[in-house]
Amino acid sequence: MATQSAKKVIVYGGRGALGNAIVQHFKAQGWWVGSVDLHANDEAHGNVAITKHDSLLEQEQEILAGVKNLVGDGQVDAILCVAGGWAGGNIADKDFVKNTDLVLKQSVWSSVIACRLSSAYLKPGGLLTLTGANSATEPTPGAVGYGLAKAAVHQLVKTLGAKGSGLPENSTAVAILPVMLDTPMNRKWMPTADFSTWTSLDYVADLLRQWSEGKTRPNNGSLVALITEKGETKLQYS
Amino acid sequence: MATQSAKKVIVYGGRGALGNAIVQHFKAQGWWVGSVDLHANDEAHGNVAITKHDSLLEQEQEILAGVKNLVGDGQVDAILCVAGGWAGGNIADKDFVKNTDLVLKQSVWSSVIACRLSSAYLKPGGLLTLTGANSATEPTPGAVGYGLAKAAVHQLVKTLGAKGSGLPENSTAVAILPVMLDTPMNRKWMPTADFSTWTSLDYVADLLRQWSEGKTRPNNGSLVALITEKGETKLQYS
Repeated sequence: MATQSAKKVIVYGGRGALGNAIVQHFKAQGWWVGSVDLHANDEAHGNVAITKHDSLLEQEQEILAGVKNLVGDGQVDAILCVAGGWAGGNIADKDFVKNTDLVLKQSVWSSVIACRLSSAYLKPGGLLTLTGANSATEPTPGAVGYGLAKAAVHQLVKTLGAKGSGLPENSTAVAILPVMLDTPMNRKWMPTADFSTWTSLDYVADLLRQWSEGKTRPNNGSLVALITEKGETKLQYS
Repeated sequence: MATQSAKKVIVYGGRGALGNAIVQHFKAQGWWVGSVDLHANDEAHGNVAITKHDSLLEQEQEILAGVKNLVGDGQVDAILCVAGGWAGGNIADKDFVKNTDLVLKQSVWSSVIACRLSSAYLKPGGLLTLTGANSATEPTPGAVGYGLAKAAVHQLVKTLGAKGSGLPENSTAVAILPVMLDTPMNRKWMPTADFSTWTSLDYVADLLRQWSEGKTRPNNGSLVALITEKGETKLQYS
């Protein structure tokens, strides 16, 4: 149970598979947990449910107001953005623009608003994590929109690590770059894949909690690839 | 004057400073020129004036229909996207999200729709150019949204250069990465800058025409930085 003096985390995308694992893990470790997502996560101590889907500015205003309701004039120790989604297809795909619009909203809008929340609510010395993709460090002809959206997130985190980015003093911004997360949905769609190369959600949740508590926290501006082989995950920093 | 057998180019952003220079240059060299922009360019042989500003999908549909009106079932030799704009500020800037929304629309939406136009209307062996920014190859704490938007364009062009991107056969996609273009607006806002390091619009227009005609065309997927010193521009390929 979170006490008044508990550390506080905002999980952006707290209703997704990874987000939910993070909510549960931090809660079990005594953190106060707020969730931002399309729907409330009943396990969280507080929720912001997004209803503005068509305008980045309206979504920003809604989420800022919602987080203010949750934390008032207080600050949080960590903001973890794990909102996202995947869409395949190349530029000849009939849904190319539609899918690109979707992944821009899922990955870039959420990352940009998480930055805004950080400048408003993150403690000095706090942690902001965003979610990139290891695949997007290379060309992504099988998922053109997804790759460009994640590349934008990567550059954003590099920028956050540079002097003058506007991040609160002594704070750290990091991107995690999964290869493949071991979610129920991914198992459903890729039932014959080698799951021993997929990264467990509990591993990611524990990693982010350690970083949030200042343990083994990467340098500001780091991209951290999660490379899993034979069920064991190693981190590659760039 | 463009003849029926003239080569054809679509200039996306044909009413901007660089776009207008390109329209004029190609026209003077006997090309048929279509312009896509917020307003018509009367120097162009055909225009698509954008009225849909709030939805990427609606903008795509409007521009696809407009270009179909111009070229019918025909194809074009080159699609040159020079739409764009700049916005400064870091994540603590009150207009951070607003400015990021703007640059995403200016640079990413235009690039994505130019890709869509290319899959529909570019000849095999044709040229697609997009516009990146040399600054966005590094962190951009003074212009956070601009940097992430241009980084998305860079990754997109790398992807277009990879097998299976959906670009018409034997076509080439290239990004130009200006440092600073010598436009009236830039001179107005930076009157004391060293203009000898700025790249002339005529130089860029001539370069893009040569590439469009197959001369010194870079490899598919190239990022080409325009580095100007003492009034002379050199190209750096990556």
